[in-house]
Amino acid sequence: MIQTDIIIIGAGPVGLFTVFEAGLLKLRCHLIDSLPVPGGQLTEIYPKKPIYDIPGYPIVNAGELVDKLIEQSAVFKPGFTLGESALTMEETPEGHFIITTNKGTQHTAPIVIIAGGLGVFEPRKPPIENLEQFEDKGVEYIIRDPEFYRGKNVVISGGGDSALDWTIFLIENKIVKELSLVHRRTSFRGHLDSVQKVMDMANSGKINLITESEVTGIKPNGNGHLGSVVIKHTTLGDIVKDTDHFIPLFGLTPSLGPIADWGLEIEKNAVKVNTFDYSTNRKGVYAVGDINTYPGKLKLILCGFHEGTLAVQSAFARIFPNKKNVLKYTTVNGVSGF
Amino acid sequence: MIQTDIIIIGAGPVGLFTVFEAGLLKLRCHLIDSLPVPGGQLTEIYPKKPIYDIPGYPIVNAGELVDKLIEQSAVFKPGFTLGESALTMEETPEGHFIITTNKGTQHTAPIVIIAGGLGVFEPRKPPIENLEQFEDKGVEYIIRDPEFYRGKNVVISGGGDSALDWTIFLIENKIVKELSLVHRRTSFRGHLDSVQKVMDMANSGKINLITESEVTGIKPNGNGHLGSVVIKHTTLGDIVKDTDHFIPLFGLTPSLGPIADWGLEIEKNAVKVNTFDYSTNRKGVYAVGDINTYPGKLKLILCGFHEGTLAVQSAFARIFPNKKNVLKYTTVNGVSGF
Repeated sequence: MIQTDIIIIGAGPVGLFTVFEAGLLKLRCHLIDSLPVPGGQLTEIYPKKPIYDIPGYPIVNAGELVDKLIEQSAVFKPGFTLGESALTMEETPEGHFIITTNKGTQHTAPIVIIAGGLGVFEPRKPPIENLEQFEDKGVEYIIRDPEFYRGKNVVISGGGDSALDWTIFLIENKIVKELSLVHRRTSFRGHLDSVQKVMDMANSGKINLITESEVTGIKPNGNGHLGSVVIKHTTLGDIVKDTDHFIPLFGLTPSLGPIADWGLEIEKNAVKVNTFDYSTNRKGVYAVGDINTYPGKLKLILCGFHEGTLAVQSAFARIFPNKKNVLKYTTVNGVSGF
Repeated sequence: MIQTDIIIIGAGPVGLFTVFEAGLLKLRCHLIDSLPVPGGQLTEIYPKKPIYDIPGYPIVNAGELVDKLIEQSAVFKPGFTLGESALTMEETPEGHFIITTNKGTQHTAPIVIIAGGLGVFEPRKPPIENLEQFEDKGVEYIIRDPEFYRGKNVVISGGGDSALDWTIFLIENKIVKELSLVHRRTSFRGHLDSVQKVMDMANSGKINLITESEVTGIKPNGNGHLGSVVIKHTTLGDIVKDTDHFIPLFGLTPSLGPIADWGLEIEKNAVKVNTFDYSTNRKGVYAVGDINTYPGKLKLILCGFHEGTLAVQSAFARIFPNKKNVLKYTTVNGVSGF
């Protein structure tokens, strides 16, 4: 069991800065994140993109900002449980919390700060009966490793950049044996050059482009694995297509994930907090950054910095009810780490 | 009359960043500051000191941070009225505000955001009857220009660095004709080397060091100007000393200054705001940064950044009650200035 003062769920920019502010109060932190590295969305979604609204940075790349925040918090030696998602939160009779991850790692602390960003990204699934029965048996919503599809027959559905880009990648790299791209409309929502490439591939017979159609049914092969899909054309009726894999790429929607079951007040897919210390309805549990909501909430990194700072002040008062905490300015005293 | 969307009182770090956030919403700002340059306390009090708690900056000099904030806000071309203090705030029948400075410059806008830091620094005055009658007639609390005292007889009172440093400066640069330093105790609170220098000056007869004494009275000369001071020794009784100037240097205390008379709810020498949008009790008037107070308030620059950001969102809704403002991320759209 990992013991600490504050368990922080989420190692994005706000979680990282919260470590720093907690450290100034001599509180130790341990961060849990489902991603394999710290940085959250900044590392995962847009590491090379510039951000212009971090105070004091006229421009900064997301990845560079994460590096700076890791450096800033490093003096307070946070612990990390990475590549694991926080699954359950239990409360002990003494009012401490036990957080257990999907891999069974356990953490305990008197304070939990949820800095989970937009939460867990869940795939949008097409409304096909029995779809979920074929998950990991030929139906995948995310292409994690393209090599997994080498020499296979694949049906992709979707009309956005993800469907287009993976189609191009799997064909250009000669990975799949046969690829069908199924799309409800005749036009695509992706970048113009991607659309052009896919059209060229269709015209030269490298892919089957099946528009004005959608996959409406799934059938198993003899082993209970996916064997074929039913493709329904708007006017022409159904065809059945044999395939090894069906990959609906309809985008990812953020969801609170397991946190939704932790007994916290939820509003608009976010954790409700008050604006005095960003505490939730459960004493000792705070939520900061994009995952919380309150009147006037803005989902900005700079707001999360403020929220984390006020949350650890409140956490300090909760852990040490009789200790007076006088705000010390780093300008006067500097920073001494652990 | 200077017209703008938002008048910001105070050109410190929080005022400057508020310009940037207002600019993202296409709102123009004009800043008023009594100091001759932007930056507030960071420029005035500790430009060379490092700050460690600006998110994303493991360390940054106060002066460097101000430069970055000026650069960040420059794209939105703020106006500046510098070296003048905001004196009065009037409201027009249409609910706009007119801010007039001590030099008579007038500004009007539908929104006022007070980012006044610790406010105005006011001198601590000794309890001498009629002291204020002699202000600018021989009594000064701040030495603005040492040359003003050339060839004069001067009485300084105080036991801190300010009293010691000015004594040393005025003597070493042979500015004054005669200098008496009056202090209530025998020991000083200043830096050891300053104390030593002043003691040496006293021993060599370059100054009159009068300890265990305080100035208790003031007398005019024939012209209504200061003519002499009464110095009371703890045990030896009073002496009357002729002098051209009496300069009590007992330090500066921050005060709200004229803002205290603007009809705003005040608490603990700060402007009370709510935590949803940092608005005051007067509609259209906000207070952000060190000058405001609310439950849980921390006087940190990073909190002021958050407060200014939420305040301009609220200001936008007030100026354009029927316009929907959708939060745009700079990462996606970049920043386009005025």
